[in-house]
Amino acid sequence: MTAVLRRAEAAMAAAGVNALLLGPGADLRYLTGYHALPLERLTLLVARADGRHTLVVPRLERPRAEDAGLPGDVAVADFAETDDPYRLVSAALDGSGPSPRLAVGDRLWSAFLLGLQATFPGASWTAASTVTRELRMRKTPEEVAALRRAGQAIDRVHTAVPELLRTGRTEAEVGRDIAERIVAEGHEAVNFVIVAFGPNGASPHHETGARILEEGDAVVVDIGGTLGGYCSDCTRNYVVGAAPDGYAQAHRALEEAQRAAVDAAGPGVTAAAVDAAARDTLEEAGYGRWFVHRTGHGIGLEEHEEPYIVAGNDLVLEPGMAFSIEPGVYLPGRYGMRIEDIVVVTPDGCERLNTLDRDLVRVSA
Amino acid sequence: MTAVLRRAEAAMAAAGVNALLLGPGADLRYLTGYHALPLERLTLLVARADGRHTLVVPRLERPRAEDAGLPGDVAVADFAETDDPYRLVSAALDGSGPSPRLAVGDRLWSAFLLGLQATFPGASWTAASTVTRELRMRKTPEEVAALRRAGQAIDRVHTAVPELLRTGRTEAEVGRDIAERIVAEGHEAVNFVIVAFGPNGASPHHETGARILEEGDAVVVDIGGTLGGYCSDCTRNYVVGAAPDGYAQAHRALEEAQRAAVDAAGPGVTAAAVDAAARDTLEEAGYGRWFVHRTGHGIGLEEHEEPYIVAGNDLVLEPGMAFSIEPGVYLPGRYGMRIEDIVVVTPDGCERLNTLDRDLVRVSA
Repeated sequence: MTAVLRRAEAAMAAAGVNALLLGPGADLRYLTGYHALPLERLTLLVARADGRHTLVVPRLERPRAEDAGLPGDVAVADFAETDDPYRLVSAALDGSGPSPRLAVGDRLWSAFLLGLQATFPGASWTAASTVTRELRMRKTPEEVAALRRAGQAIDRVHTAVPELLRTGRTEAEVGRDIAERIVAEGHEAVNFVIVAFGPNGASPHHETGARILEEGDAVVVDIGGTLGGYCSDCTRNYVVGAAPDGYAQAHRALEEAQRAAVDAAGPGVTAAAVDAAARDTLEEAGYGRWFVHRTGHGIGLEEHEEPYIVAGNDLVLEPGMAFSIEPGVYLPGRYGMRIEDIVVVTPDGCERLNTLDRDLVRVSA
Repeated sequence: MTAVLRRAEAAMAAAGVNALLLGPGADLRYLTGYHALPLERLTLLVARADGRHTLVVPRLERPRAEDAGLPGDVAVADFAETDDPYRLVSAALDGSGPSPRLAVGDRLWSAFLLGLQATFPGASWTAASTVTRELRMRKTPEEVAALRRAGQAIDRVHTAVPELLRTGRTEAEVGRDIAERIVAEGHEAVNFVIVAFGPNGASPHHETGARILEEGDAVVVDIGGTLGGYCSDCTRNYVVGAAPDGYAQAHRALEEAQRAAVDAAGPGVTAAAVDAAARDTLEEAGYGRWFVHRTGHGIGLEEHEEPYIVAGNDLVLEPGMAFSIEPGVYLPGRYGMRIEDIVVVTPDGCERLNTLDRDLVRVSA
């Protein structure tokens, strides 16, 4: 962790930022190992470019913070229930001058940012990800190994899905079974379970509902959890009985688009070019207008993080960057489909961390 | 929902606020019924004091938003993956003048607030809770009924705890069983499971870990979930075999303190006075220095919301306000204990929504 703090100090200096102000969440975990609870009481790491770091915590969280094994150069400052926590933040930034440049955690609650802005009226503000993305975006070999383990676990869950897809069951019932298996395969948390039958699949973020599985339904299953701190995320498509008209053909085009994007991904290529590889393939096959979202998102400590695989993102990919490649085709009122693997950029291309077959999975009704 | 929006417009007018800007979360659910996903793509309700309301959503969330049955006077504006969502927010605030007063959701991610502040440089900002607390703090009879159902469900889970507390099991194992029962008793979500054996109970927010239950351990079990959209939260204390030295006596003092606070709670009394009732009782019994946190927190759509039962909070309680009363005693290195019920203020006192016996529960080893 101490090495990570040194890298953070260097990244702050390079970005012209005096301090990172990080609440509970992935940046805090990355820098200190502390899994803070998101509470209405302020928890805030003040990490300074000059190497003086303070973790401000509510007094009753102090034992949890100390149990986390914080790096030795992070001081802990606690406040009682009726104390003003911003006074501690102010003390932690002592000597930063009247107009420091402060980078605040992207997901810190706005009520806290408003409190900080009232405390430091002369400061200028930016999002912490402008600094931390430079640290977190390129995964170490240990982080890639953690993502690989998470990917293998979610793949094992997918192999059990066909037996759960019995006509007469609801999306919610199948979803509950899948959630149990996500935990049984080693994840410490279930992050999301999308089980969409028939036309529900045409809403990319439909979760689960009361719809009953019928013969002839296409099914989208997009699932993920956290294992060893790192996220899994994988989508496959199933049909129960005979596929709907045109479905199999669209799925073949989608397989090609996903493969084209994976083939395109590698060092020196832009994120936008990977998106274009999937999009162009679907457009040539006549499905372009039904591919309504970006091709992917980075993944690591968070389910969605940088780099985003989207038109306009000129970020050049480098070894260690990990992200999803998940083109989809959505026909409103009929069905949807999406094929998603996590990949990590290697020196000469990329490695898929989900290795399941990507064919349409046919389940007998 | 439309009636709630009218009340919100009146509350904005009273607070001198031009618009509420609400991201995914409880305020948005309260005003529109929409359970938005917390995503890195902006979802924002722009609710104006003048009654012109717009929900800005990512295009791929539009089906979920429309399925939520939004109030008829909320327009939906969507943006594609490469569009600037702040342009839509700007359009939704059209005509608000160069220096509107904007109230931003307390838990909106800071990255979005920074984006909004860059879009409206002349605006002044406040936390949305300054407006929405006036709406959400006094529960309707339907909301009280929902909290009562949630309370009864978590009480049923507690009645099953003794059979789970077998020596040789870990906190994590017991916690997993409890989480399953929280769902089995009707909750749609498990919010938290604290199972603390022996000295771990002295850290009020310890969750679960690898510690193995031994004869003579005191156990704190603090659990909660969401049922029908409303939260449950209840803490009871167990001992396995003979209680540690001094434990039973401290628990009796804690029972008295909790009862004193419940007896004190009612209309016309301040939140601070309820806190003082518990605190004074523990101080007189010689345990005051071991009661390290406030007496309680409001509860409803969120696990923790206003009113907070804490020294210095001069808010006068009114019928319909719902909150926890949960004094505790924590002896570092030895054990902890906390007794928690949810109560709702009635015209002549308060009603406990958790009705389990509050005695120490003795489990044979």
